[in-house]
Amino acid sequence: MMIADEAFPVEPWHVRETKLCLDLLPQSESLFALSNGHIGMRGNLDEGEPFGLPGTYLNGFYENRPLPYAEAGFGYPEEGQSVVDVTNGKLIRLLVEDEPFDVRYGDLIAHERVLDLRAGTLRRTAEWCSPAGKHVRIESTRLVSLAQRGLAAIEYVVEALDEDVRVTVQSELVANEDQPAPSDDPRVAALLVKPLEPVEHEVSERGASLMHRTRASGLMMATAMDHLVEAPGRFQLSGDAGDDWARTTVVCALKPGEKLRIVKYITYGWSSLRSRPALHDQAAAAIAAARFTGWDGLLDSQRAYLDEFWDCADVEVDGDPDCQQAVRFGLFHVLQASARAERRAIPGKGLTGTGYDGHAFWDTEGFVLPVLTYTAPGSAADALRWRASTLDMARDRARELGLKGACFPWRTIHGEECSGYWPAGTAAFHVNADIALAFERYRVVTGDQSLERECGLNVLVETARMWMSLGHHDRHGRWRIDGVTGPDEYTAVVRDNVFTNLMAAENLRIAAEACGRNPDDAADLGAGNEEIAAWRDAADAVHIPYDEELGVHPQCEGFTTLREWDFTESNDYPLLMHEPYFRLYSSQVVKQTDLVLAMHWQSHAFTDEQKARNVDYYERRTTRDSSLSACTQAVMCAEVGHLELAHDYAYEAALIDLRDLHRNTSDGVHVASLAGSWTALVQGFGGLRDDEKMLSLDPHLPPGITRMRFRLRWRNFGVVVDVDHDTVTYTLRDGPEGELTIRHAGQDLHLDTQKPTEVAVRPRHPLLPPPQQPPGRAPFRRSRV
Amino acid sequence: MMIADEAFPVEPWHVRETKLCLDLLPQSESLFALSNGHIGMRGNLDEGEPFGLPGTYLNGFYENRPLPYAEAGFGYPEEGQSVVDVTNGKLIRLLVEDEPFDVRYGDLIAHERVLDLRAGTLRRTAEWCSPAGKHVRIESTRLVSLAQRGLAAIEYVVEALDEDVRVTVQSELVANEDQPAPSDDPRVAALLVKPLEPVEHEVSERGASLMHRTRASGLMMATAMDHLVEAPGRFQLSGDAGDDWARTTVVCALKPGEKLRIVKYITYGWSSLRSRPALHDQAAAAIAAARFTGWDGLLDSQRAYLDEFWDCADVEVDGDPDCQQAVRFGLFHVLQASARAERRAIPGKGLTGTGYDGHAFWDTEGFVLPVLTYTAPGSAADALRWRASTLDMARDRARELGLKGACFPWRTIHGEECSGYWPAGTAAFHVNADIALAFERYRVVTGDQSLERECGLNVLVETARMWMSLGHHDRHGRWRIDGVTGPDEYTAVVRDNVFTNLMAAENLRIAAEACGRNPDDAADLGAGNEEIAAWRDAADAVHIPYDEELGVHPQCEGFTTLREWDFTESNDYPLLMHEPYFRLYSSQVVKQTDLVLAMHWQSHAFTDEQKARNVDYYERRTTRDSSLSACTQAVMCAEVGHLELAHDYAYEAALIDLRDLHRNTSDGVHVASLAGSWTALVQGFGGLRDDEKMLSLDPHLPPGITRMRFRLRWRNFGVVVDVDHDTVTYTLRDGPEGELTIRHAGQDLHLDTQKPTEVAVRPRHPLLPPPQQPPGRAPFRRSRV
Repeated sequence: MMIADEAFPVEPWHVRETKLCLDLLPQSESLFALSNGHIGMRGNLDEGEPFGLPGTYLNGFYENRPLPYAEAGFGYPEEGQSVVDVTNGKLIRLLVEDEPFDVRYGDLIAHERVLDLRAGTLRRTAEWCSPAGKHVRIESTRLVSLAQRGLAAIEYVVEALDEDVRVTVQSELVANEDQPAPSDDPRVAALLVKPLEPVEHEVSERGASLMHRTRASGLMMATAMDHLVEAPGRFQLSGDAGDDWARTTVVCALKPGEKLRIVKYITYGWSSLRSRPALHDQAAAAIAAARFTGWDGLLDSQRAYLDEFWDCADVEVDGDPDCQQAVRFGLFHVLQASARAERRAIPGKGLTGTGYDGHAFWDTEGFVLPVLTYTAPGSAADALRWRASTLDMARDRARELGLKGACFPWRTIHGEECSGYWPAGTAAFHVNADIALAFERYRVVTGDQSLERECGLNVLVETARMWMSLGHHDRHGRWRIDGVTGPDEYTAVVRDNVFTNLMAAENLRIAAEACGRNPDDAADLGAGNEEIAAWRDAADAVHIPYDEELGVHPQCEGFTTLREWDFTESNDYPLLMHEPYFRLYSSQVVKQTDLVLAMHWQSHAFTDEQKARNVDYYERRTTRDSSLSACTQAVMCAEVGHLELAHDYAYEAALIDLRDLHRNTSDGVHVASLAGSWTALVQGFGGLRDDEKMLSLDPHLPPGITRMRFRLRWRNFGVVVDVDHDTVTYTLRDGPEGELTIRHAGQDLHLDTQKPTEVAVRPRHPLLPPPQQPPGRAPFRRSRV
Repeated sequence: MMIADEAFPVEPWHVRETKLCLDLLPQSESLFALSNGHIGMRGNLDEGEPFGLPGTYLNGFYENRPLPYAEAGFGYPEEGQSVVDVTNGKLIRLLVEDEPFDVRYGDLIAHERVLDLRAGTLRRTAEWCSPAGKHVRIESTRLVSLAQRGLAAIEYVVEALDEDVRVTVQSELVANEDQPAPSDDPRVAALLVKPLEPVEHEVSERGASLMHRTRASGLMMATAMDHLVEAPGRFQLSGDAGDDWARTTVVCALKPGEKLRIVKYITYGWSSLRSRPALHDQAAAAIAAARFTGWDGLLDSQRAYLDEFWDCADVEVDGDPDCQQAVRFGLFHVLQASARAERRAIPGKGLTGTGYDGHAFWDTEGFVLPVLTYTAPGSAADALRWRASTLDMARDRARELGLKGACFPWRTIHGEECSGYWPAGTAAFHVNADIALAFERYRVVTGDQSLERECGLNVLVETARMWMSLGHHDRHGRWRIDGVTGPDEYTAVVRDNVFTNLMAAENLRIAAEACGRNPDDAADLGAGNEEIAAWRDAADAVHIPYDEELGVHPQCEGFTTLREWDFTESNDYPLLMHEPYFRLYSSQVVKQTDLVLAMHWQSHAFTDEQKARNVDYYERRTTRDSSLSACTQAVMCAEVGHLELAHDYAYEAALIDLRDLHRNTSDGVHVASLAGSWTALVQGFGGLRDDEKMLSLDPHLPPGITRMRFRLRWRNFGVVVDVDHDTVTYTLRDGPEGELTIRHAGQDLHLDTQKPTEVAVRPRHPLLPPPQQPPGRAPFRRSRV
C-alpha cells in the first residue's frame, strides 16, 4: 500500500501521523525508527502489537549464515551476514483493569505519533476506551540518545480520564521475537529463526538484564533496563525473568486526572571479544549514567546535539513545503544512521529495518559521505575509519580473486564479501574507487590531512594496486578495464564502463598524489617511483568510449548499439523482478544512473554539450528501478538546465520513504536516497562540485522554489549560501579571518569573512528540450501534475 | 590417480584389466559400465564392495531437488533433477564356507576383467584363496541386453579348486545404497539421501521383486530378479525380502573341479503414469521373456546387435593400435548410451555415473548425433524425437524468458531447464541451433524426410522464432545477438559470438527451407511468408565480427582486444576450479573450441586462410579444460594441415577415459568426447563435412596412421572409405543401383555401385607452422614424446 499524500501533514520540523493506519504499520515503523547509528529501534508500538516488522538492531551485531549456490564457482563467498533483531527493550504493555491496551480492540478515540526532527524524539499520544468502557490517555516519548550512545529511554505516562481505574504496566525485555514470514523479494533479508542463545538473565531492584550470544558469529550482547516510577499514591513494583524475557511490573490505582509516569532506560552492550562480566558491567554502567543524566537531561542533550547538527546541515527551502519537510526528514535519518556509528558500517537501511540483510554497500561512500563530509565531518571520518579497518579482509579478498592490493566487498556488515551473485557483486569493482574518492573528498573539503596519514594512504595505495591488476593496456596502448559491472545493475560484466574507468583513473591519480604528499609512508608501503609512474600512465591512457555517430558516451563499450528496450509493451517494475538478467543485460535499459553519475562525480571530464546530450539520451532509457538514481538525475538535469524536471527528481529522492515510492520502506528507510535529497538540492540547485578540488558553486533554482539557503563547511570556513532567482549571497559566518576563493558559475570568486558577497545567478539555457522518460517512469511529482 | 598406460593392454576389440587396482576402482567402474541406453550398470564388483561409486541407473528416472540461490533472480529454475542410483540388481555375494569373498581379504591369486566390445559383455575371472585357505575360481559374465531393453543378466560360476568347499551365494536386490561423501566439484552430482520410498516387496519361487517410488518426482519403478541354478548335486534355494532389499540364497557343496552356475536375470520397469500392478507385471513379463530367451540366446542376440553396429560404424586404424582400441571403446560407449534410449535423453555421461547429475546437454545433438546419424541413424532419430517431445516445456521456458517460440534447456533429464548458473546455462542459447541443425543433418544424411514432418518442423519453426526474438537489427541493419554465451564457457554473456551467430543464421535458413518443403504444416504453425522472409533477412544480415588488424575472427565482439591470459604463471587446471569467473571472462583464455568449432560446423563460412590463421590464434589460447574440445581441435588442425598435432588431439579425445585425462572418469565416461574419437578420425583425417548438404570428403592421414578404413551411411548408400597416404578408395557396398555424387577434396566425384573408385589423396600444405599451445596444455600424446 502506497502512502497517500495526506498521511503525514506537511510541517517543517515534524513528521506527524494523525490517525493510526494499521495497513501502513510496516512503513511507519521504518519512518518513525529512532537510531543513533549504534542502536536502532523501529517505530513499533510500545505494546508490541500489532506490528509489521518488530526490530531492534545494534550496529555490527549480525549472525552468519551459509550462502547456498545451485552451481558454485571459485571465489564465491560461502558465508553471509545478517543483521539480528536483538532483544526488544522498547516493549511496554499496559493493562487497564484486566484489559490489555491493544489498538485493535475497544475504541481508539485519538492516536497521534510525531517524529520531532529537532527534539530527536518519537512522541505518541493515544486516547483509548477499553472494551469494558474504561477511558485512559497514554503518552509515550521515546529517544535513542545521540549523546550517550549505548542508551535509549522511554517516558510512558498513563492518565485516567473519566473514572477510577487500576492500571498495570509490564515493561519488558524480549529476545528472539517472532518474525513475519519471509518474502520472495531478493532485496529482503534472509530469515533468522531464534538467532540468540541465552547466556544469563538477572532481575535487579527496578529492572532486569538479559545476556545472549549468536551461535555462528560468536557475538555476545547484554541488555539492561531500569525504571523510574512516579505514581499519585501507592504502587507495587515487581520483577521476573527467564531465558528470553524479563519483566518489570508496576501496578497502581488512578483517579480521574491522575497519572502514572514511568521512565524506562534501556542499555545495550555487545562485543566479539569482551567477557560476560565485562559486558554485564558495561550495561549496568550505562544504566547508572542514564539515571545520573535523568530524563530531562537526556532530552536536553538530544536537542543540543541536534541543534548543532542543524546549524551545520540545514537546508531551507522556501516555496516548496513538501521538499522542506522531506529534506529535513532525510537529513535526520542520515544523521541517525551515522552519528554514533563510530568505526562501524553505515548500512543501506541504517538501523531501521532488515532490508538487504543490514548490509553496507557503496551507498555509504558514494551517497552518504558526500553529505556528511559537508555537514558532519566527524561522522564521515569515522565511517572512513571503519572502511580502513577492514583493509586486511579486503587484501585477503583481492588475493583470493587473483588481484593485487585490496578489494573491498560489495556488501557486508563486518568486512567480508557477502554478495551471492557475482555479476552484481564482486564484478562491481567501482566500490573501491568510490571508497578512495571518499577519502580524498574528506581531505579536500575539510582540509584535514591527518586521516590520510592515519589510514587513508593505505587504502589509496592498495586500491590503486587492485586497479592496476584488474585493468590492462591493449595493443594500442589504451588502458582498459573489462569484465566489470558499473553502477547500473541492468548492464553487467561489460567492457570499459565509463564510470568505472574514470573513477579508477581518478583513484590512481589520487593515490599517486597521496604518495607524493607522504613519501616516507609510501615507501613503507613499498610504493616506489616506478609503481607510481605506472599508475599515472594508466590513468592518462584510460579508454573512454564515445559514440561519434550519436554524439553520446555509451555507458560501456558498445552500449549504444545494444537492442532498445521495448518500453511500449506493458512493463512491470522493477524490471529485475519480472525479466531475466540476460534480457536486461543485452538491452539499452538502465536501472540507475551510471554514465549520468559519472558526469556528476567526474564533472570535469565532460563538456557542457556532452552533458546535455548524454542526459537526454539516458533519461529516455532509465527506469529508476534503483533508489540510487533520482538524486543524481536531479543533479544532472539541473546542470543541463531542465530545472523543473530536476525539481521533480529532487522531490522523488526526498519523498522515497515518506510516500513509500519503492514499495519497500517497510524493510527500512533508504538512507542513500534520503541523503540524496540534500544532494539534489545542494549539488543540483546549488551547483556544488568539488571534483576539481575547489569549492565550486553555481546556484539556480527551479520555478517552484523561491529561495534556498544552505550551509557548508569548507576547510575551516562555515559557508552560508542564500539564493533566490536573481541573486546569490555567500556568507563566511565562521572560520579564520581572511579570504576564501571559490568558483561561482565557473569563475573564481573571493569571499571575505568581513561581509557577505552578492553575485548574480547565472541563468541556465538548456541546449535541448526536456527529455521524455520511459512511459510511466516520469518522476513521481510530474505524474501527479 | 591417473590411469597408467600399462593398465589396460592394447587389444583391438577388448579392454582388459589384468590386475585389480583398488585405487582405480572408481574409474574402472565407469569404463566397465554396461548399458543399453535404457538401463545402465556401473562396473561394480559382483559382491558390491569395495566400490568407488555404486550405481545402477534408469534413463529418465530422476528425483527433483530444490536449486538454492544466495541471491535469486527472475527466471532462475527452482527445481533441479538428479539421476537416482536405483535398486542394485547386480549384487551377488559369495561365501566360501563362512568367509565372504572380498578381494581385500585372503589371497587374490588372479583377477581379470574384460570388456568385450563385440560380445557386449563384461567378463570377470578371479581366483581366490580365502583367509581359511579355501581355493575357488569365480567367473562372472554380465550383460545389459541390447535386444531386450528392460533386461540385464549375469552368469555367475564358482568352481572349487583344491578341496571340498561349501559355497553360499546370496543374489540380491538392494535399494537406497549408501553413497560416498559428496565433493566440492560443481561438475559432480548433488547427493541424494535414500531417494527411494518402498512401495512393495515380494519373494517369488526363484527370485524376488521390489517396488519403489521417488518422493518428489513421483516416478515408480519395479525391479525383479529370477535365477537359474545348476549345481553338481543337491542345493538349497531360499528367498527373503524387506522394504529395501531382497535376497535369493543358494547353498551347495562342491568337490574340486565342480562348479555352481547361476544365471541371474534382472529386469526393470518404471513410469510416471502406469500403476503399481502394471509395473509389477511389466517386470514379471520381462523375466518370463528372459527365461524364454535363455542365457545363450541373450549372448547371441547381443553379439548379433553389435555385429550389425560394427558393420555400419567400425573405423579401422592401421599403425596406431592405441587409437584403434580407443575409437572402438568410444563407439561402444556411444552405442551403449543411445542404443535403446528410445525417446529419452542421452546424458553427458550416458548411464555410467552420476556426473553432471545425469543431465543431457548440447553434447547430444552437437557431438553424439553426428556420429549416430552416420552409424546408427535409428538411434539418432529417437534422440531427436526425445527433444521434440520436450517442445512444450521449451515453449514454456521461452515464454518465461520473454522470448518467442521455444527455448530448449541447457541441462535437463526430463526437459525442464535445470541450470543453476545462468551465464553458462540459460545464456548458452546456441543449444537451440545445435538441436535444429541436428534435425537437418539427419534429414540430409539419411534422406529420410519423414522425421521433419513428424516433429522436426515444429522444432525448426519454434527455434527460429526464438532467435528472431533474441536477436535484433542494429542501426546499420546488421543482425546481432547480444548477451549470450557461446560454447566456450570461459567467455560469457557476450556480443555477437561468431559461433552462435552463424548457427542461429543457419537455424533460420533451415527453418525457412523446411517451411518451403512443408507449406501446409508451416501454415498450421502460423509461419506465413512475411515471418519466413524476416528469418531469411536476419540470416543474411547476420553480423560476423572480424579483426582486420590481426586477420582473425574474434570469437565474439572485442575478444581479440581483451587482456591476454598470463600462461607463464603457474596455473592450476581446470582454471574454473582456481580462478574467479570475472577473470576468465575478461581474458583471452578459452576453455574449449568456440570459434574453431564454428569453423568445423559451419566450414563453408570461412576461407582456407581464415581457418589457418584462426586455428593458429586460438590454439595458443585454448586450455582444453572441457572434454568437448580435443576432438574439434583434431578436426580443424587436420584441415589446416597440422596432421601430427591433429593426431595427438584425436588420441586425447579417444583416450580421455581410458587414461582418465580429465580426472573425473570416476563420475562416468565422457560420451561426447568418446564420440569425438570417431569425429576426430572420420571428420579430421577423413575430411567428412556435410554443412553444404553434400557428402564431402577429403581424406589425408597423419604420419602415424598407415591406413584407415571407415563406413558411412549416406541416404540409402553404404559407403566405405579406405585411405592410405596416397590413395583413397570409395566403395558403395550396398544401396540402390546407380551413382552417388560426392565431393572429394573440393571436387565433385561420381561413385558407382558397380565398382570402387580410386582417387589420389590431396596433399596438405599448411599455411603456417604448427602452433604452440599454452605451457603444459599441449595435447596428451605430444607431452609423452
